[in-house]
Amino acid sequence: MDPRVSFVTLAVADLAATRRFYVDGLGWEPDFEHEDEVLMFEVADKVVLSLWAEWGFEAEVGPVRRGSGIVPITLAHNLATRPEVDGVLAVARAAGSPEVSDAVEREWGGYTGYFADPDGFRWEVAHNPGPIGQRVLPD
Amino acid sequence: MDPRVSFVTLAVADLAATRRFYVDGLGWEPDFEHEDEVLMFEVADKVVLSLWAEWGFEAEVGPVRRGSGIVPITLAHNLATRPEVDGVLAVARAAGSPEVSDAVEREWGGYTGYFADPDGFRWEVAHNPGPIGQRVLPD
Repeated sequence: MDPRVSFVTLAVADLAATRRFYVDGLGWEPDFEHEDEVLMFEVADKVVLSLWAEWGFEAEVGPVRRGSGIVPITLAHNLATRPEVDGVLAVARAAGSPEVSDAVEREWGGYTGYFADPDGFRWEVAHNPGPIGQRVLPD
Repeated sequence: MDPRVSFVTLAVADLAATRRFYVDGLGWEPDFEHEDEVLMFEVADKVVLSLWAEWGFEAEVGPVRRGSGIVPITLAHNLATRPEVDGVLAVARAAGSPEVSDAVEREWGGYTGYFADPDGFRWEVAHNPGPIGQRVLPD
């Protein structure tokens, strides 16, 4: 098996709320959508982010973990400069993110903050000046 | 904010077990690793999968959701043919995946199965003959 991710799928409780946040709020253009079931965005070359209604996810994959606490994943959006990090966090706040934490300097040399989407999935908005952080930036 | 994912981070309980599964079992080559804290793989052009020790994740992001049920995300690995799907599921089983479900035909025309990593994160192994499924395949 080669190390390759084609889709990242998040199960969402209310796809209409998800759509309002990502499409109306963040201004993303759907790559594909099917009624009240799924909404997809191309988020890298050959990688699609799929927001899938929880009922569909549970029917196929199984009952999801419920309760308090943060789902143990984050998606990071890396940027070339610190001011861009602040700018994207401001956009997320304006889009109605239920939780935004301002960026701070990290001990590893980066500058990162987080915002939550309507289901509480955490996005990390990051400037990472190290080699791996530079390598993920758009050309 | 442009629709772009740079890192997908999963918080893992036991990084040594994670390493045994992905590196020794699946045969993946780490792109970066730091002691018992983090293990990274390049999983698409400009996209890195980061397996982060849960203690580090919780210290920075917050307490994770615990309990039964499946973490409400999946990562998909798409393939050009049905036999390749069966092949990768066999590899995951041989690598010691704690749970593998054989691929089945899906109503939308695909052929997919799932395996779990040591933390129970679900990987979907998929043949998707539709346009979006074809677009994510390697050149």
